[in-house]
Amino acid sequence: MALDTSNKREFKVVGTRVQRPDGIDKVTGKAMYGADVTAPGMLIGRILRSPHAHARIVSLDTSAAEALKGVKAVVTTADLSTPEDDYFADIRDNCLAREKVLYDGHAVAAVAATNKHVAKEALKLIKVEYEILSHVTDVDEAMKADAPIVQEGRADESVHEGWSQNVTSHFEFGHGDLEAGFAKADKIVERTFKTAATHQGYIEPHACLASLGTDGRGELWCCTQGQFLVRTKCAEILGIEASQLRVTASEIGGGFGGKTTVFIEPVALALSRKAGRPVKLVMSREEVFRASGPTVSSSIDVKIGMTKDGRITAGQAKLRYQGGAFPNGTVEFGSQAAFAAYDLEAVQTLGWNVMTNRPKEISYRAPGAPMAIYAVESVVDELCQELSLDPLETRLKNAARKGTLSSYGPTFNDIGLVATLEAAKTHPHYSAPLGKNQGRGLSCGFWFNFGGNTCVSLNLNSDGTVGVVEGNPDIGGSRASISMMAAEELGIPYEKVRTVITDTNSLGYNDVTDGSRVTFAVGLATIEAARAAIKIMCSRVAKIWGIDEEAVVWEDGCAKPSGPNAGEFPPMTIAEIAAIADNTGGPIAGHHEVNADGAGVSFGVHIVDTEVDPETGATKILRYTVFQDAGKAVHPDYVEGQMQGGAVQGIGWALNEEYIYGEDGRLQNPGFLDYRIPVASDLPPIDTVILEIPNPGHPYGVRGVGETSIVPPLAAISNAVSRATGVRMTELPMSPPKLLKAMSER
Amino acid sequence: MALDTSNKREFKVVGTRVQRPDGIDKVTGKAMYGADVTAPGMLIGRILRSPHAHARIVSLDTSAAEALKGVKAVVTTADLSTPEDDYFADIRDNCLAREKVLYDGHAVAAVAATNKHVAKEALKLIKVEYEILSHVTDVDEAMKADAPIVQEGRADESVHEGWSQNVTSHFEFGHGDLEAGFAKADKIVERTFKTAATHQGYIEPHACLASLGTDGRGELWCCTQGQFLVRTKCAEILGIEASQLRVTASEIGGGFGGKTTVFIEPVALALSRKAGRPVKLVMSREEVFRASGPTVSSSIDVKIGMTKDGRITAGQAKLRYQGGAFPNGTVEFGSQAAFAAYDLEAVQTLGWNVMTNRPKEISYRAPGAPMAIYAVESVVDELCQELSLDPLETRLKNAARKGTLSSYGPTFNDIGLVATLEAAKTHPHYSAPLGKNQGRGLSCGFWFNFGGNTCVSLNLNSDGTVGVVEGNPDIGGSRASISMMAAEELGIPYEKVRTVITDTNSLGYNDVTDGSRVTFAVGLATIEAARAAIKIMCSRVAKIWGIDEEAVVWEDGCAKPSGPNAGEFPPMTIAEIAAIADNTGGPIAGHHEVNADGAGVSFGVHIVDTEVDPETGATKILRYTVFQDAGKAVHPDYVEGQMQGGAVQGIGWALNEEYIYGEDGRLQNPGFLDYRIPVASDLPPIDTVILEIPNPGHPYGVRGVGETSIVPPLAAISNAVSRATGVRMTELPMSPPKLLKAMSER
Repeated sequence: MALDTSNKREFKVVGTRVQRPDGIDKVTGKAMYGADVTAPGMLIGRILRSPHAHARIVSLDTSAAEALKGVKAVVTTADLSTPEDDYFADIRDNCLAREKVLYDGHAVAAVAATNKHVAKEALKLIKVEYEILSHVTDVDEAMKADAPIVQEGRADESVHEGWSQNVTSHFEFGHGDLEAGFAKADKIVERTFKTAATHQGYIEPHACLASLGTDGRGELWCCTQGQFLVRTKCAEILGIEASQLRVTASEIGGGFGGKTTVFIEPVALALSRKAGRPVKLVMSREEVFRASGPTVSSSIDVKIGMTKDGRITAGQAKLRYQGGAFPNGTVEFGSQAAFAAYDLEAVQTLGWNVMTNRPKEISYRAPGAPMAIYAVESVVDELCQELSLDPLETRLKNAARKGTLSSYGPTFNDIGLVATLEAAKTHPHYSAPLGKNQGRGLSCGFWFNFGGNTCVSLNLNSDGTVGVVEGNPDIGGSRASISMMAAEELGIPYEKVRTVITDTNSLGYNDVTDGSRVTFAVGLATIEAARAAIKIMCSRVAKIWGIDEEAVVWEDGCAKPSGPNAGEFPPMTIAEIAAIADNTGGPIAGHHEVNADGAGVSFGVHIVDTEVDPETGATKILRYTVFQDAGKAVHPDYVEGQMQGGAVQGIGWALNEEYIYGEDGRLQNPGFLDYRIPVASDLPPIDTVILEIPNPGHPYGVRGVGETSIVPPLAAISNAVSRATGVRMTELPMSPPKLLKAMSER
Repeated sequence: MALDTSNKREFKVVGTRVQRPDGIDKVTGKAMYGADVTAPGMLIGRILRSPHAHARIVSLDTSAAEALKGVKAVVTTADLSTPEDDYFADIRDNCLAREKVLYDGHAVAAVAATNKHVAKEALKLIKVEYEILSHVTDVDEAMKADAPIVQEGRADESVHEGWSQNVTSHFEFGHGDLEAGFAKADKIVERTFKTAATHQGYIEPHACLASLGTDGRGELWCCTQGQFLVRTKCAEILGIEASQLRVTASEIGGGFGGKTTVFIEPVALALSRKAGRPVKLVMSREEVFRASGPTVSSSIDVKIGMTKDGRITAGQAKLRYQGGAFPNGTVEFGSQAAFAAYDLEAVQTLGWNVMTNRPKEISYRAPGAPMAIYAVESVVDELCQELSLDPLETRLKNAARKGTLSSYGPTFNDIGLVATLEAAKTHPHYSAPLGKNQGRGLSCGFWFNFGGNTCVSLNLNSDGTVGVVEGNPDIGGSRASISMMAAEELGIPYEKVRTVITDTNSLGYNDVTDGSRVTFAVGLATIEAARAAIKIMCSRVAKIWGIDEEAVVWEDGCAKPSGPNAGEFPPMTIAEIAAIADNTGGPIAGHHEVNADGAGVSFGVHIVDTEVDPETGATKILRYTVFQDAGKAVHPDYVEGQMQGGAVQGIGWALNEEYIYGEDGRLQNPGFLDYRIPVASDLPPIDTVILEIPNPGHPYGVRGVGETSIVPPLAAISNAVSRATGVRMTELPMSPPKLLKAMSER
């Protein structure tokens, strides 16, 4: 169901549900994923990983492995370069450990051999002597003054006295007089929350095929959300020039943020360079869990004051995120997002990134926001419970809107939170009856959305069809939406356009597919490229007609004479113009390069009904409705898919998903049998309501939609559980044993 | 040795001998050729070919093949589309025969199976009933009124009465009063020549991997000189939209014009569409000889009149080219090129294309010119012999120059023929002593050179390196020369640039790599793209400096303030500008799309010394020097390589190479053992002298150099043999038995 609230432009292609361009390839198995490409003479790579959470590498002897018949290369950190920038050095050290292994699964060495059996055998022949060190995997433990130090010399200079050197950075946002705000409150609730690390759970493990010459010229095929990012990072880590490494992104079997860095690619390139042959490296599922990047786990304090009539007087959050051995700094986003849904006079967020002996965190859909907003929305809900207020009305009363000074600095432009809350309020779900052991929860969600560096070329083919070239792997339907926007702007059917994602050396630099940026930024660049092509087409036609360029207008996919020349010539279609391109100057194209801003923030509201089994503590999702502002939903199917997918992943976070570490610091559940993501039988149909409050930063009003939807489920479900059971859970996941324990303690 | 006669521009990169970008990949085996790519679930295709030169297909039963376990698809012409255009229908019918097979090796059906053994077995199960028809393989025989007709209804309307319907087109060029011209002559020589069909002899057979869905969306990886041409032709033959077929050109193991059409690609796509799986199809060497395109064989009459002092008074040529079952029309080029080296008052060329029961002709380096110029240059030489004139002085006396009305219409601009002849005249080779049974021959050569549709994008990477994107497979070093021109224009080292050849959907349309067009046209577009990027870089810097865009100039790879602002700011390097691209608007690129003209014709002069063994008739090449105008030699190594390579291929044509047909119309020598190309031991080092007469149509004066060099060897060697033996050979190749026979008859 789509509520077109305010976007008045008439679209012909945008907003329809055209056929997915990758559908047939994917269902017939023809789509080529990371592991699907081969090369003659290709070797198979395998990585030796640390069995310890924290240990010094006393010695590393690869000679026996090298001597094994069929082994063509063994690499260690000594085969990588020394980037000037610490940022790249950290990525390198995560790919192959330098002096210490910092987490269970940390890569130590790698082999390339003629087949996987030899490679596996060779790993056993690598002798590593470890000096085991004490470790820490919990964020609060890691901050303590006497905690084992994961990496020396990384402490934030302004780190709190009494905290350990594991605290690597901190952030602060907010405005207003907090003390005065809390003084005005009738009720203050203060709570501490903990959330578990969760994995993106993409179906396709990391995989690549690398070929690098000793001349520093290479080719890399890999499964990634950003071929340009892979190129930059690999070039730094291998000590080669970026332009000499051509990276092609394969079809991608899920990313969700988890494929926005490199893990195995530099290793495969180093193996190839040493062996002089192409090397394929594919992670196992266990390796994905142990050594790719889950999201942070967190520990968060939230304090909110409210008047009796539901006005929030002040809000404060303190966020501690552990990011594994090489934190990304995600707490910055969490600190910014925590109170973004509210129009507050006094607000403060403080955030700290903390190192632990866990795998390096990587983005996971709206990185940093779900846990922060979970904590805030839980406390808001508790205040509503305490003050007997309607949680939806209370949010409406405090909702950020156009002109609100946001909790993280900028003043909001046109945003859709109020409209989204209003849509939720009038939706039948919100007033439907509930049964025994059932509760209804609500939460707002927010994501910034990014723009960023983007290049698009649009080429007119001689048959009048159009090719769009972009550089962002399609993780959520962008090929369709980009083609649709090109078709819309040119005035031709969607079927006449094919959008391809090209390699790093066939197009200018594009930022990674993240931040829900692609439909917005690539779409914007596509529209601009189409406009540039239209300008050229009009000038070619003007030449043919012998009239002024300005006297040719573009309408309905045709050039038409206008002004004094109106009606003088019959319109020329795009196919007719394409057919004469040769004779009017050559091929016709449009290009656009931009560092796009104006992405436009996105808000969502989720309503969920749960039923908790008092015998087992198991929570069942009975009904779920997602309301979200898409700006303009280019392809509503995909938008709904994003809304549903985010909700489902959030349900996983809320109820089941967590990295479980043993006393020895080793991951105990590195597989889908023990790390439980929601499956179809766990879920009701997820209803969706798309709102369309145009983003003024985009020609068609588009906003990113991919990330906001994972933010609300945590609090929405926790709030629903609280109302179903009377128990306020402050730790995720709310797995049955934990919930049962809390219920019995009540 | 390079004689820079007139190009005064100072180059820093252009003209140097930088490292080949593809060298390491090729010598280490990492370069990926047509047969090197695989896909999961890939099937192997095989083609059933006609064992008859000419036959009607009475019935074709594929049911037994289809029923064989492991066979996933069998296709015939019924699985192809019906293009509106006869041109495409012909290409289709060459890929899979329709009602008749038209030559030995003509494809009839194809299978795709799980492995090559099953595929081979399946071919045997296809039952074809043929009604054998009479055939014709010789051009003169095919023109006779009673000749077997290869294809009905293809006759040129204006065909000579008394000739058969196999004559499909004719051309006429020239000017002046021929009769008056011949009347002025002191001596007239009139001769008929015959040349054999020869094959390009590329090392890599045709190969492709095709994947096409029933939705008409496909991917094709293949070895070709033109991925865009492959896309257009396949789309027409398969009945799909061009934009939906993404074609990637592999590294290419030789083309020489032979890979400028499709043979197996539409068949592989049809198999894939039917099987629902990717299909690999690779030709065997025998298939390459029998069913890819050799050049035409010819029969040519030449009549030339000359005064005693060596002035040519009139020239006439009648050219009859057989182009197999589907002629290309190459005689047009031959008719135009025949007398191009001469400044003539009266000249006429008449050309006829003729169908025969042979494989479809395809371009082979300067298509149509070598045989035409061989005939003319043989007669000119004979006139010099008859009139005791120096052949070089005689050519100088009659040489085309700036302002000459060419024999094919246009008036020449700056051309290098006279300079090239002068260089030959003063070269030690021309006056070196000769021994017994030795002779020295000389010939001029000519090629038009093409421009054509070309798109280039140039991207500045964040590390200050530069990527150039072009769409023409590199058959002679164009990646190096394009990078060099980009580096030259930008003022940066060659090593900072990488040029890649991208797929059809990542760049606008590019004409095929032919006509010696790439270094000229892609180079021109690259220079323009670099200039566009420089303009943007200057505007970004102007923004930073806060000065007028016009006050920023580009020098030595830096933006510098000029005019009133000169010296106000330190120059900014390209790397510095790249580093701030994000903050000044986004990625920086330059693009250029053009249908380039002004390619500039190219002339060459070859001198060769031969020794003929009077016992065996074997001709040995003793010394060989190539003089050629390159306009500007961007990378002299490659230019010399082109000059040497053309000479060597021409030596093959002159002495050994020929398609030999049996009485049954079947090819008798489809392999390199029986089709003898020159090998290293047959050849002396080929000396080269590059001349540089700038082409005014190119910013750096570049002319194409790839084709002219194959034109002179035929006549040069024939002339040398004539002077060594006293025998004027009028048929190529001058293989030992033929020459021995002629010598004994003398």
